[in-house]
Amino acid sequence: MKIAILIYNGMTMLDAIGPYEVLAQLPKAEVFFVAKKKGEIKSDTGYVHLNAKYDFNDMVEADILLIPGSTIAFVKVMNDKKTLDWIRKIDKTTQFTTSVCSGSLILAATGLLKGLKTTSHWKPISLLKEYGAIPIRERFVHEGKIVTAAGVSAGIDMALYLVNEIAGEQLAKSIQLLIEYDPSPLYKSGNFTACEPDIIQKAERQLSRNAKRELNLFEAITNLKTLKKLK
Amino acid sequence: MKIAILIYNGMTMLDAIGPYEVLAQLPKAEVFFVAKKKGEIKSDTGYVHLNAKYDFNDMVEADILLIPGSTIAFVKVMNDKKTLDWIRKIDKTTQFTTSVCSGSLILAATGLLKGLKTTSHWKPISLLKEYGAIPIRERFVHEGKIVTAAGVSAGIDMALYLVNEIAGEQLAKSIQLLIEYDPSPLYKSGNFTACEPDIIQKAERQLSRNAKRELNLFEAITNLKTLKKLK
Repeated sequence: MKIAILIYNGMTMLDAIGPYEVLAQLPKAEVFFVAKKKGEIKSDTGYVHLNAKYDFNDMVEADILLIPGSTIAFVKVMNDKKTLDWIRKIDKTTQFTTSVCSGSLILAATGLLKGLKTTSHWKPISLLKEYGAIPIRERFVHEGKIVTAAGVSAGIDMALYLVNEIAGEQLAKSIQLLIEYDPSPLYKSGNFTACEPDIIQKAERQLSRNAKRELNLFEAITNLKTLKKLK
Repeated sequence: MKIAILIYNGMTMLDAIGPYEVLAQLPKAEVFFVAKKKGEIKSDTGYVHLNAKYDFNDMVEADILLIPGSTIAFVKVMNDKKTLDWIRKIDKTTQFTTSVCSGSLILAATGLLKGLKTTSHWKPISLLKEYGAIPIRERFVHEGKIVTAAGVSAGIDMALYLVNEIAGEQLAKSIQLLIEYDPSPLYKSGNFTACEPDIIQKAERQLSRNAKRELNLFEAITNLKTLKKLK
């Protein structure tokens, strides 16, 4: 079972590494971290450096495709024809095409989410409408062969769900034990709908600072129109 | 606030990337992924390749030190004098010295856990006794300035707890919302004590297969005595 995970400069690492850790345990799993160009890929914070061993030419099919999100770099990827074409090509071969966090915006930009219920990180979720998707605030949403997850950590729940769908309950439970996924968050603030308004404001300020840092770290984001809508 | 995360061949990526994603949001955080030698570090599965930009000579102090675990490579690190010496040196400068999963075995091998309640992944946890630590099955355990977390995903809970200790409830809640940490696992099998015996057996078989793969991927593990005790 071939699992292709798109990686790109400015990506949020946990969006990819959470699901990877689960999906790599599928029977006969082979995981490929694939970038537009081989070489080093820097995270949104600039602190993590992944090496892409595979590029779009190497990877022509996959059973599972996973598109991770980012603080702001997804806007650039949404406007990158080569990446969108590659996603459309791989999607034709997949059993599941999936995303985590703002990765669903990238998927939406390919046109693959038209008319589909879709989730995303709580911040950019409303943008999905502009691409014909129907935004739904859920941990993850399964429509046909498309599965989209909410922000960052939601990829772990989605990946365990995929294992359950593909290989059944016994393996999903076993992998859950392997990664000792018995979460005990201190607070309930991980849920946007249940979160106190002052905490949401604080998180939005932090996101703004992170976006600024990312704009300084990477090349200017090209599509300023989309960026403005995010603010 | 300097956060040093040890990386080494054979490490479990989520052990490091989960807490990193949380701790990187601390005020004035700077995160350093530090290896014995600069260059490429391969995960336990062989699918993820991190670039270490810093080595032990570059990093001489840190506010938080984090030691991630691994399927089997931790046994090798437990016997690597240079790594243990570096951990002891950095620990003298930290506000918190922490581990995730079998990373606590590495910490235990430095002698820093003598007489301290300590947790670890459910599989190697009993080994802690051999190094004078007191094994406790908890999501994470805080003793003095040492905080140890259970397996893999437990690092996220531990990191949010650290933020709460260092910067208070408001920031911990805000970061929890940033990474949308509102976990909804399908099953309860992530808890070893609550898990069905047949699922534990299945997970143990998977761990064995993973360990074999890792032994093939990396150089032979040197301390076979410790390895045998794990079986």
